[in-house]
Amino acid sequence: MSSEHARQPVTMREVADAAGVSVATVSHVVNNKEGARIGEDARQRVRDAIHELGYRPNALAKTLSSGTSNFIGLVADAIATTPFAGQIIHGAQDEAWKHGYVLLVANTEGDPAAEDAAITMMLEHQVRGILYSTWFHRAVTVPEALRETDYVLVDCYEAGSTAPAVVPDEVQGGRTATELLIQAGHRTIAFINTTSPSPAQEGRLVGYRSALEAAAIAYDPDLVLNAPSDQEGGYAALDHVLTLDATAVFCHNDRMAMGLYDRAHERGLTIPGDLAVVGFDNQEVIAAHLRPPLTTVALPHYELGAAGIRRLLGDPNPSGKPILIPCPPVIRASIA
Amino acid sequence: MSSEHARQPVTMREVADAAGVSVATVSHVVNNKEGARIGEDARQRVRDAIHELGYRPNALAKTLSSGTSNFIGLVADAIATTPFAGQIIHGAQDEAWKHGYVLLVANTEGDPAAEDAAITMMLEHQVRGILYSTWFHRAVTVPEALRETDYVLVDCYEAGSTAPAVVPDEVQGGRTATELLIQAGHRTIAFINTTSPSPAQEGRLVGYRSALEAAAIAYDPDLVLNAPSDQEGGYAALDHVLTLDATAVFCHNDRMAMGLYDRAHERGLTIPGDLAVVGFDNQEVIAAHLRPPLTTVALPHYELGAAGIRRLLGDPNPSGKPILIPCPPVIRASIA
Repeated sequence: MSSEHARQPVTMREVADAAGVSVATVSHVVNNKEGARIGEDARQRVRDAIHELGYRPNALAKTLSSGTSNFIGLVADAIATTPFAGQIIHGAQDEAWKHGYVLLVANTEGDPAAEDAAITMMLEHQVRGILYSTWFHRAVTVPEALRETDYVLVDCYEAGSTAPAVVPDEVQGGRTATELLIQAGHRTIAFINTTSPSPAQEGRLVGYRSALEAAAIAYDPDLVLNAPSDQEGGYAALDHVLTLDATAVFCHNDRMAMGLYDRAHERGLTIPGDLAVVGFDNQEVIAAHLRPPLTTVALPHYELGAAGIRRLLGDPNPSGKPILIPCPPVIRASIA
Repeated sequence: MSSEHARQPVTMREVADAAGVSVATVSHVVNNKEGARIGEDARQRVRDAIHELGYRPNALAKTLSSGTSNFIGLVADAIATTPFAGQIIHGAQDEAWKHGYVLLVANTEGDPAAEDAAITMMLEHQVRGILYSTWFHRAVTVPEALRETDYVLVDCYEAGSTAPAVVPDEVQGGRTATELLIQAGHRTIAFINTTSPSPAQEGRLVGYRSALEAAAIAYDPDLVLNAPSDQEGGYAALDHVLTLDATAVFCHNDRMAMGLYDRAHERGLTIPGDLAVVGFDNQEVIAAHLRPPLTTVALPHYELGAAGIRRLLGDPNPSGKPILIPCPPVIRASIA
């Protein structure tokens, strides 16, 4: 047991005794009560005693007496399986702390019972509000209990409702990926999209088409394939891409690009010499370490978390539609 | 703003009015006060009113009146950059909930000021204790503020101290990885270790040697290389491995194995036919999707988090040494 390490917490009474004042005086100083008439001398003795004894004010008591807590809840569905959830937490925590709030994080791994328990726990702790986040961009049904407090959906949205939401700008991301290839001189650009229906599938295709249109390149539906969104999907798609006379390919995500690289190397092709490649996600552990390193478009998870907190705390959004967060390009070495 | 969604919390007074009892009676029922003489009929009316009105007890008030909180803190240094931290959180949360505790998670990204702020925040919230975790196994200096409460180090330890700690069993993991190759008939087994001094570097080598010894295979130091622990390190090491007449290679981690695969494929080698490969970590997004999928040894992050909570809440450890968590094999297709 580690109990022998733990010191007993210092009480307000001990601070009062050390400073030679009443407990009420210590309380006034600690809580910055306005209008309390305490001399600067006594105030300083209290501060000195606090410092010397290592007294820590009780945040829960403060919460209770002020009637509002400094907690914001974050419900995440996949902390354990993806670094993406971690980046949402990081962004949300940094932004919450800036505003004096502490993040209560709960991990549900998609289990409805865990989700219900997490939201209940947060409501019982009088949270200021809750961010409800998913690890990939999708439509959700807002859990009934969420409506008991302020909430913001992060990386998800409710179809046909005005539920506050913050999501990545898939259309802009798809356009940016395609533009990177167009700017390098490519005109015949294949797009390996995912087979999974999702806002990413739809939005990135819209972005791909709008980039072509802006460059006066005719849209050719034969250049758009669909494949499972993992390495195996990208690997299997490469042979088809080679029949299309494409000089460049936009992969729906970095995992597909990794598989596509493997098959391209097996076939003796050079990237980017024989085929330029752009990914999506910026999944660092893959994209930064492929041969050559993969140029891609980042999913802005940190920004999603931070923007979710700002929306919760009052950033106005008169449109009633989800707020779109830009997906920035990350330039490496797979386009020439 | 989402405020228009939020309902006013139901008060104990409203429950009392609906049930036709006093607020004190509601309080007794909610807090399961023993010895309170309340008829079963009134008790049922209170429960019905709670259910009907959606009343939620105030967990903070309970905490304050009982003098202990149901919070356990978890300080993590790299939530945003690795899924490993996520798995520690997942394991810690599941175990904490089992015991009626809620996890307060703080992310520091290795910043000492953020760490200090996180620990202070947790102490102010009267946490039952704190897990202090790192995303890779290493020695740390226990922050002074941690000693004000019960704590457990997770995936780290303090050299030469009895600070309670839970870490992966690197020696057993290295032995298991090597045994997988020996069991497949390999006798000349290269080991590409990391260049970074760490418990993993040291422990996995001890495990490698002990597996050889148990199989009566002489240890040949020429078979042990050192390389940077990423894809580029594994890629560059393959050529050296091929000069050693090894039929199998144990890579310090999965990222190195990924780079080694790339170079092996460039050189026209088949895995596992020409060279058997085993990794370490079980970094799913890589290991499960290499060609062929990588047999490896898992770092038990979920278990580290769960064991940390059990240690904090009183699992005895008379030895005073860090508790070792086993690293299990994950069999895929890279050994023949």
